[in-house]
Amino acid sequence: MKRLLAISVVILTLGLGTAAAQQALQWGAAPLQSPQVNEDGTVTFRYSNPKAIKVQVTGDFLPTQKLEFEMNGQKMTYDAPGTADLKETKPGVWEYTTPFKVPSEMYNYTFVVDGTSQIDPLNMWVNRDVASLSSVLLVGGGVADDYFIHAVPHGTVSKVWYHSVAEGIDRRLTVYTPAGYETSPKVKYPVVYILHGIGGDEDAWVTQGRATQILDNLIASGKAKPMIAVFTNGNISQEAAPLENSMGYNVPTMSLPKTMEGSFESAFPEIVSFIDSRYRTVAKPASRAICGLSMGGFHSLYISANYPDMFSYVGLFSAAVGVSDASVSPIYQDRGAKLSKLFSRKPMYFIACGNTDFLFQANKDYMAELDKAGYPYEFMETDGGHIWRNWRKYLDAFLPKLFK
Amino acid sequence: MKRLLAISVVILTLGLGTAAAQQALQWGAAPLQSPQVNEDGTVTFRYSNPKAIKVQVTGDFLPTQKLEFEMNGQKMTYDAPGTADLKETKPGVWEYTTPFKVPSEMYNYTFVVDGTSQIDPLNMWVNRDVASLSSVLLVGGGVADDYFIHAVPHGTVSKVWYHSVAEGIDRRLTVYTPAGYETSPKVKYPVVYILHGIGGDEDAWVTQGRATQILDNLIASGKAKPMIAVFTNGNISQEAAPLENSMGYNVPTMSLPKTMEGSFESAFPEIVSFIDSRYRTVAKPASRAICGLSMGGFHSLYISANYPDMFSYVGLFSAAVGVSDASVSPIYQDRGAKLSKLFSRKPMYFIACGNTDFLFQANKDYMAELDKAGYPYEFMETDGGHIWRNWRKYLDAFLPKLFK
Repeated sequence: MKRLLAISVVILTLGLGTAAAQQALQWGAAPLQSPQVNEDGTVTFRYSNPKAIKVQVTGDFLPTQKLEFEMNGQKMTYDAPGTADLKETKPGVWEYTTPFKVPSEMYNYTFVVDGTSQIDPLNMWVNRDVASLSSVLLVGGGVADDYFIHAVPHGTVSKVWYHSVAEGIDRRLTVYTPAGYETSPKVKYPVVYILHGIGGDEDAWVTQGRATQILDNLIASGKAKPMIAVFTNGNISQEAAPLENSMGYNVPTMSLPKTMEGSFESAFPEIVSFIDSRYRTVAKPASRAICGLSMGGFHSLYISANYPDMFSYVGLFSAAVGVSDASVSPIYQDRGAKLSKLFSRKPMYFIACGNTDFLFQANKDYMAELDKAGYPYEFMETDGGHIWRNWRKYLDAFLPKLFK
Repeated sequence: MKRLLAISVVILTLGLGTAAAQQALQWGAAPLQSPQVNEDGTVTFRYSNPKAIKVQVTGDFLPTQKLEFEMNGQKMTYDAPGTADLKETKPGVWEYTTPFKVPSEMYNYTFVVDGTSQIDPLNMWVNRDVASLSSVLLVGGGVADDYFIHAVPHGTVSKVWYHSVAEGIDRRLTVYTPAGYETSPKVKYPVVYILHGIGGDEDAWVTQGRATQILDNLIASGKAKPMIAVFTNGNISQEAAPLENSMGYNVPTMSLPKTMEGSFESAFPEIVSFIDSRYRTVAKPASRAICGLSMGGFHSLYISANYPDMFSYVGLFSAAVGVSDASVSPIYQDRGAKLSKLFSRKPMYFIACGNTDFLFQANKDYMAELDKAGYPYEFMETDGGHIWRNWRKYLDAFLPKLFK
């Protein structure tokens, strides 16, 4: 038996004929580990490469650096992730330990080897964000505890296809049903629709967003009500995430047709109808919420305003609130009148934005508009910009407010 | 509107501050594409790195090379993936086009940059196999057409947790329900249980195995009956795949406790009971199949033999058939008598193995044992060894035989 195992391991190890495979396997000699959260709260990164001259790590766990860029002739600055040098501690083995305790958070990082970036080959946890891969570091003991998988009852996470009459294609959703859904056949559940940003898809909130872990943990602790969560794909011309469709979108791209021109918002009721027919939902506005980040916040604003009888809870996270062009679609016309109708239904309206977000001013302007009309809302201001760590926090704050 | 999009793209592009992110985005200038299946059937790989000295690609689309290795003092040879050199066609841009048409297949590859392997940073499709990441190349027009997503009705793919009484923990399954399952509430379905190999988990067959695409396509074309498929995690001490559990197994490893010592096989009925209670199944042996690759074939052999009234269909793919140690567990004892009981029920018994598989002789020996006892089975012999491309083919051949 042991013999077979040993042979299998060799075969599998050689499977790709790669150094990475051999290094990464925990068999026999202790392999390198990267990343490693140390007992003192620092984090160590390791990388094996005998021929590299300079190895760096860049990621949002490091202090940011101001970068300038020009856009339409305007100079703007951006808080880019910092970099740190790994040192060759043994021949071919590179290492960096943070000189500080890394606060609890979910981070993304890559190595930069002689100027070219790559993911950490020792870390199997890789997330795609739009068209970039990065390695993931999750540090517990604080805010990120809700992003971990704990030994609590877990919901079911499904990839589900619905037929879009508006587009004439089948399209994919991610659907979370809370623990107990399948074993409580008489219970009906409220539903939150959670929308991604530009370049994302129905996978984004469950990979980069850790939304199903957040739901599991909030529900298990009693902080949020058991609810169904639906993660839509807001690129309406696309069946599904880039590698999950039949349409040849095999390279992730932002230049998809029909992005932010009203079609997605206009066709949203067919998704709600599908969910209400497929799942045991409470099919009433008081049991429906919609929220989204960036473009998804923009979508949430217009979907809730155009269908004022659909949602009693609206969450706009770093939302693109100031930029609708009424000439593009009737969906974007008469916003004031539509908001008036929506707010006459007294929705819980939640706005969150980071104070260095490039959309911060637009959000302040939008809130001034709401103030002027006397519409109540909650505002959550955080540090930081247009980043996932904020969106996870906003979701974690928004979900406990729902369906109370 | 356009302005906002442009700014968002810059922000997202800078999101990781990495060269890869900027290269990979399809916005403005045409980005590098890799891999690219050309019209003449060749495939081009591209890689950007101004400081590299030698860049190679290694993968199973290239002719294999014989490698020797020693195991327990014995010299063995192994067919390792070949390598090919990329050439610097423009400063910093490396390229390789195969000098041959690449046959339809799903391939895994990595780049080797100055001796160190890394995944293709331009290819968002990354699969984890045990503790290795590799980039995926899918070439259609033949055998791999069943591995593509086509515009056919799609089943639902769910991550579902069950409680294991045997282990006292919640454990995760992947469950495929065929298109129409949710809309045909009176129809009951047969179930196939599909088991992974050592080092794998409940994700392996749906990532490396393309099993849900194979099911979608076989069912849509009428070649296979609509069926539920259950992908178990055969590492019974593990809740779920390495990054999906609360147990700290964050580095994939093969040295998990309780591997191939009877516990998983012995507790299998609790999974079947869970599925029969949770889903609309035909809960009879004639509507139950079990199959698996390598360790999963070993598991399938012993589960079907120990529970002869459970499955009418058994598939052993490159199975570890010759190695059970009866002293380890009662599950492995009296195999002859157990098989006699099983075969008296006249199961469809399917064995498949590649003729260069290190387990080929063991499978021949096992078939000789079946022949001697007069037990009927089907045998599918293929080229090649202990590799995913064979396991996908075996599944594609096995599923149409079920429930007829």
